[in-house]
Amino acid sequence: MPRSPAANAELALLLEVAGTPKPGNVDRERDVADLRFEHFLAGAVGARPGLERAAAGAPVGEAFEDAVAGMAEHGRNTQFGCLLLLVPLVRAAARDDCTPEGVADVVADTTVADAAGFYRAFEHADVAVSDPPEEMAALDVRRGADAIPALESRGTTLADVLAAGAPDDGVATLRGDPDSLAELGDGNAAEWCGGFARSFDAAERIAAGEGPILERTADVFLALLGEGLDTLLAKQHGLEAAFEVRERARDLHESGASREAVSAFGDELVARGWNPGTTADAVAAGLFVALERGVSV
Amino acid sequence: MPRSPAANAELALLLEVAGTPKPGNVDRERDVADLRFEHFLAGAVGARPGLERAAAGAPVGEAFEDAVAGMAEHGRNTQFGCLLLLVPLVRAAARDDCTPEGVADVVADTTVADAAGFYRAFEHADVAVSDPPEEMAALDVRRGADAIPALESRGTTLADVLAAGAPDDGVATLRGDPDSLAELGDGNAAEWCGGFARSFDAAERIAAGEGPILERTADVFLALLGEGLDTLLAKQHGLEAAFEVRERARDLHESGASREAVSAFGDELVARGWNPGTTADAVAAGLFVALERGVSV
Repeated sequence: MPRSPAANAELALLLEVAGTPKPGNVDRERDVADLRFEHFLAGAVGARPGLERAAAGAPVGEAFEDAVAGMAEHGRNTQFGCLLLLVPLVRAAARDDCTPEGVADVVADTTVADAAGFYRAFEHADVAVSDPPEEMAALDVRRGADAIPALESRGTTLADVLAAGAPDDGVATLRGDPDSLAELGDGNAAEWCGGFARSFDAAERIAAGEGPILERTADVFLALLGEGLDTLLAKQHGLEAAFEVRERARDLHESGASREAVSAFGDELVARGWNPGTTADAVAAGLFVALERGVSV
Repeated sequence: MPRSPAANAELALLLEVAGTPKPGNVDRERDVADLRFEHFLAGAVGARPGLERAAAGAPVGEAFEDAVAGMAEHGRNTQFGCLLLLVPLVRAAARDDCTPEGVADVVADTTVADAAGFYRAFEHADVAVSDPPEEMAALDVRRGADAIPALESRGTTLADVLAAGAPDDGVATLRGDPDSLAELGDGNAAEWCGGFARSFDAAERIAAGEGPILERTADVFLALLGEGLDTLLAKQHGLEAAFEVRERARDLHESGASREAVSAFGDELVARGWNPGTTADAVAAGLFVALERGVSV
């Protein structure tokens, strides 16, 4: 009995949080601040009806809002970013086209109503965001549903919203040395605008890896963390924090550091309150694509 | 957005495996033999469609078979026993009667067709069972679907099947000192025939406990392990093993032993290959009832 796309998306959320060690993030060995492992379990289960709606053809924005509302018991944000990647991927998979082109089509088809669903989703959970550029103030996601009239009058689709938040040069910017948070933008927006390049790349590495899937998950997390700036970390703690984490993760990954060394790096990140959560989002998306391609648990 | 009964059942499976330390069982800190943590995550996700069918009113035996088939990727048995308890509890909850009386009604309503579904479920997963009494040889569950003609000719319902496997005196037998495996019977069959007494008891303790739900889960596991013989352990390693584990768990629980001491007991059980899995089944059922009653994660 093969798992449905929604089931694979839920399982991807669960495997992501269970991949260990995942420095700075919740994993089997670690809770982080007020977020505990079980909150991610409940978040994954709660998101499933929204993921089912995405698979069944509901508007992407509505399905995303439902998934976030189901995830966010007590307003906790455990997997908002993961769901932002998973919802269009689930839709593409339900169309039997879980490819960069297939998900780009889903993005291109989004509407103003989808943008409204995305804004409403921010009312369900506490999400870290940066100040938007001045001309976008009316569309600050922190306004939630209050921004919907501005979306409608400007005819802004969900793809437009995410394009405004993406780095100018997508993944290349994450790998480079941007001068400002505005130049860096958001890693998940970069995925939306760039054919989900990191997600599919993560999927290929997971599929090509050896050993238990949770070890491959941890390995791919460290690899991605060493290759691209984590934009959640940058928003919360500044660009220098993101540069430092990228460099140290790269060194650990390239040197084939022991599990203990990677865990010790995680201890340090947790002590500083540094949480590279956007990288975890790409890993969850990669797990989903890998499961869809038949990688087994 | 409240979780549905099927979602709560899936979450109960996830919380059960994440409760740590749970001596002798897979938990956040430990994989056991060929069963890894991620197999339980996939098992929970895979079981969901069967649990949804149970909630929607499908015959209990069919819903159970579906749940087991979805759980058992590659034939692995991660949560067969948990599902045997959860399926009737989900049905009772979907009828807004998740009480000992409500689930007893579900049991009483089972049919010969439900028994056939139960037997078919054994074809999907590798389940530990004992030899049946001689007069029941035609109904040995290891015969799978081959036993269905005998069920039909005898008019044996699923409640009848489980009554044949239950200890003569239910929970009291688990707490006593039976002389043989036949006298001991099966702990999950005892639940089916005894109003799910241990499951509801576990739920009350989880609801009354304090601290993170995974700590309460581990505490209730140790409490139950110290109160009743684990019938999976007895079947696989003999009555003396079950007596010993019950006594040592009781000592650890009554003395308020440290997490380290409980983990060390787990190390020892794992080294001996002793897996008290039936106790984990009751904990999963207790978590489900607690979630249905509004306990939050």
